[in-house]
Amino acid sequence: MKLLKSLLPDWVRDYQLKHFSDDLLAGILVTILVLPQSLAYAILAGLPPQLGLYASILPVFVYAIIGSSMIQAVGPVAITAIMTFSLLSPLATPGSVHYVMMATALSLMSGLLVLVFGIFRLGFLSNLLSRPVVGGFISGSAVLILLNQIKFILDVHVIDTGNWGQIASIVQQFSLINPATLLLGGIGFLIFFMTRNFLTKWLETKGISNFRASMITRLTPLLVVIISTILTIQLDLDHQYDIKVVGNIPSELPYLSFHLPENSDLVLLFVPALVLAFIGAVQNITMAHALAIKRHERTDSNKELIGLGSSNIMTAFCGGMPVGGGLTRSAVNLASGAQTPLASIVSALTMLCILLIGVEWFSKIPLCILAASIMVAAISMIDLSGFWRAWNYDRADAFSFLVTGFGVLILNLQIGIILGILLSVANLLYRVSSPHIVVVGRIKGTEHFRNIERHHVETLPCSLFLRIDESLFYGNLSSVESKLMLEISKVPNINSVVLIMSAVNRIDATALEVLTEVLLALKTRGINLHFAEIKGPVQDRLLNTVLYKNL
Amino acid sequence: MKLLKSLLPDWVRDYQLKHFSDDLLAGILVTILVLPQSLAYAILAGLPPQLGLYASILPVFVYAIIGSSMIQAVGPVAITAIMTFSLLSPLATPGSVHYVMMATALSLMSGLLVLVFGIFRLGFLSNLLSRPVVGGFISGSAVLILLNQIKFILDVHVIDTGNWGQIASIVQQFSLINPATLLLGGIGFLIFFMTRNFLTKWLETKGISNFRASMITRLTPLLVVIISTILTIQLDLDHQYDIKVVGNIPSELPYLSFHLPENSDLVLLFVPALVLAFIGAVQNITMAHALAIKRHERTDSNKELIGLGSSNIMTAFCGGMPVGGGLTRSAVNLASGAQTPLASIVSALTMLCILLIGVEWFSKIPLCILAASIMVAAISMIDLSGFWRAWNYDRADAFSFLVTGFGVLILNLQIGIILGILLSVANLLYRVSSPHIVVVGRIKGTEHFRNIERHHVETLPCSLFLRIDESLFYGNLSSVESKLMLEISKVPNINSVVLIMSAVNRIDATALEVLTEVLLALKTRGINLHFAEIKGPVQDRLLNTVLYKNL
Repeated sequence: MKLLKSLLPDWVRDYQLKHFSDDLLAGILVTILVLPQSLAYAILAGLPPQLGLYASILPVFVYAIIGSSMIQAVGPVAITAIMTFSLLSPLATPGSVHYVMMATALSLMSGLLVLVFGIFRLGFLSNLLSRPVVGGFISGSAVLILLNQIKFILDVHVIDTGNWGQIASIVQQFSLINPATLLLGGIGFLIFFMTRNFLTKWLETKGISNFRASMITRLTPLLVVIISTILTIQLDLDHQYDIKVVGNIPSELPYLSFHLPENSDLVLLFVPALVLAFIGAVQNITMAHALAIKRHERTDSNKELIGLGSSNIMTAFCGGMPVGGGLTRSAVNLASGAQTPLASIVSALTMLCILLIGVEWFSKIPLCILAASIMVAAISMIDLSGFWRAWNYDRADAFSFLVTGFGVLILNLQIGIILGILLSVANLLYRVSSPHIVVVGRIKGTEHFRNIERHHVETLPCSLFLRIDESLFYGNLSSVESKLMLEISKVPNINSVVLIMSAVNRIDATALEVLTEVLLALKTRGINLHFAEIKGPVQDRLLNTVLYKNL
Repeated sequence: MKLLKSLLPDWVRDYQLKHFSDDLLAGILVTILVLPQSLAYAILAGLPPQLGLYASILPVFVYAIIGSSMIQAVGPVAITAIMTFSLLSPLATPGSVHYVMMATALSLMSGLLVLVFGIFRLGFLSNLLSRPVVGGFISGSAVLILLNQIKFILDVHVIDTGNWGQIASIVQQFSLINPATLLLGGIGFLIFFMTRNFLTKWLETKGISNFRASMITRLTPLLVVIISTILTIQLDLDHQYDIKVVGNIPSELPYLSFHLPENSDLVLLFVPALVLAFIGAVQNITMAHALAIKRHERTDSNKELIGLGSSNIMTAFCGGMPVGGGLTRSAVNLASGAQTPLASIVSALTMLCILLIGVEWFSKIPLCILAASIMVAAISMIDLSGFWRAWNYDRADAFSFLVTGFGVLILNLQIGIILGILLSVANLLYRVSSPHIVVVGRIKGTEHFRNIERHHVETLPCSLFLRIDESLFYGNLSSVESKLMLEISKVPNINSVVLIMSAVNRIDATALEVLTEVLLALKTRGINLHFAEIKGPVQDRLLNTVLYKNL
């Protein structure tokens, strides 16, 4: 019994009954509110719509048990859906049996990779992606979503020949646009857009409480879907005006089956799975973190990865699509007052009931309405303000954003993200390679030493005080050395040089050797080199070195 | 006239006549002392021996005019020779006409690349190589040289099938070893080895001055070559005992010709040329730097690259071999008292005279003696002490050394160096990703704040002082944030947190966003976040940010 208890997640053991009603309500609300999205994301991923529902059961359940976040809800999300489509559509025809099997294999492989990241505590690898790179990636992907979904609003058949081919294809078929679809989709788009961006604030100005206003805002899109569906059924829009609808969804449970991916697929899918795993991991960790800060909780990145990985592996068993931590899902969860992952378990059970009771009326949901809802979500994913902040603060970061975004759009997802990572690393290397080094003097009457160009300070004759504002390593040693020699040559009759090491956090082997050479060379010229304010950990390492012995 | 004068290098305009005799003597000495080496390195590179002599004329002249170092002497060196052999032998049969043409093309291309590095001021790129990586690369190359030269001492015909194939081939032919060659080569090896490692010190213990002792040490190898050549001629060793000799060298000047490399060769040679350019540049800059420090001079990395590049381009015009900054050459130059690059010009002219007067007797130099001299030089290139220093100071650096060295040996030069660079960058990223963060307190009665675990300090209730010993960037923000939250959770009734930023040299866009989020999140919990000792350049950038406005 004790063993059984220790196997249970912390939140189950410490569960407080007072949270039960909150969790119950939140779980039911999340399922109902995100149901249209789940269908839409499956369609976006190029998969049969029911897979979006299947992916909202078992994976959600597994994540609730294993994940580290109390509030985050996983499920089909925009970014994993567009990634699935972009990564797989060059390899198989969307909607085909082979495509569905590949999506399953992709879930499984990326899930396994994420699980391995978590087990080997490689969560820190997600630090390879800077925010501008992630922002550029998500913005680029959002434009891909828009390009992908516009066809449903216009009701034209797009021949998929890359992103620019799609645009050309749409322009060519301009005369074939279905005005009824455009009207319905357009109205839907406007309502979704206004609701998402202005409704809450407008309601608040009318004196409605923030909680109510945000619940109304979240319910409105569902109402639009329901009303448009009722209209379609009542007015027979799908036959009278040729408005495309979701179509029949089998009212059955996902068959728990599992096909081992073929070897050839494994090879083809390795890089896509890695990209999906990487981006999924970063997004999940970032969001879990942000939610935890809001609730004064802490998350464990590696546990988070194990949860996300297991969840995706489970998806593969019910023929589903890759899942991720969903912004909307988690926000609904938080806003509905969910307290523990029990809300997610309730949500999974609710979806199970919906599938059992029947999903026939889903078949009449107009595709243009779903597309409109996705497009509004996609527009909000384009992180222009993030780009502007980066632009104003650090041009190199803004450049990484642009390169990643356009890389995703013009080339492909993999190349975009790789370009972004390479740029960030190159930028980092370049920065640490050109360190800030200043000559300092003492502020009169204090023990403080400051930059002689910024402050009024006193200096000593025949001596030089230099503060090095960077860790010393192979990449910047030569420029540090040049600067040191330059400053030495400026001081007449110099006999001592003091290097102030308060900002030197590390000295690597190359730096140690060069410093030793400089020390010995200066000694032969009658100049003594001294070190001041060396940090504890740096000093510890220097104790047994030639440098230390020659000081 | 003024224009002409301004085109002259600085050292020519400022030339002091008193240096003339020093430069003259040094120039002549260098040529004579390194002559056997020049032949040997050409053979090591798989080229006809006279190319080593040709490469000691025009390239040396060009470098003297264009290079930035006053003392460094370029010419055929061990590392470029073995690199030429390793890079080209998979592409053409060593010694063949095509091979010689490829070597010329390789010189030209690597020269152009180095020149471009210099013109575009990319000298800083050489900072990508840490000393342990360079050490590992050179040590690995040295072992390649030993494997390559052993055949001349044993006088066996080695079928070149990779490094391990060579060893197997030598072992198989153990019974075919020529005892006469082994004896002569072995004696030569012993004398060279003892001379190089012990002679100077031994002579000094006998009361001979350091200058004389080192000149005797440098002359001895030349004497060994001369004596062994005379012995070979007198005793007819090459016919009586089948001792291989250098063979006929055409006593003519290098024909100034130039063949544009074929397109197919250009493609094949691009990566090898890049590797050669990269390593050549690093070695040259490092050595020019070290020599300049000894002489209280300064060098300009980019000018240095322009000199080295032009020098290699010139090599290509006289059908020569790639050249580099030579340790032995430069050391002889320095020891002989050279004061300016005039010494190198004298050296080039001396070599020209030798070629004109006649090189017939070079044909009888025993190959085993040249091989022995190269092997002794190669042994001294194996940087075991550098490895030990790295091992004792920083295991990760030692690991980079090993991986690069074994990569060069087991795989090839290109892969070895790439592995080394990747490891160094990964190591750097890993280090900055896991920053040192300490809780500090004030040393009583002072303004100094120190680690509470290392010093006896006083702290305030309800507050936390944290010193972050690393620049904040996308790679370490999450660990900084975790550590911050952990420490906050340890202080009861906490209401203020002070981050001491004295060691934070940079805050990138990702870090800025996370800090802003943390600041706002803490504010809602009634905790104020403060920053202290922000560096000038960091503060300048923060002024217009959301973070600053919310402080």
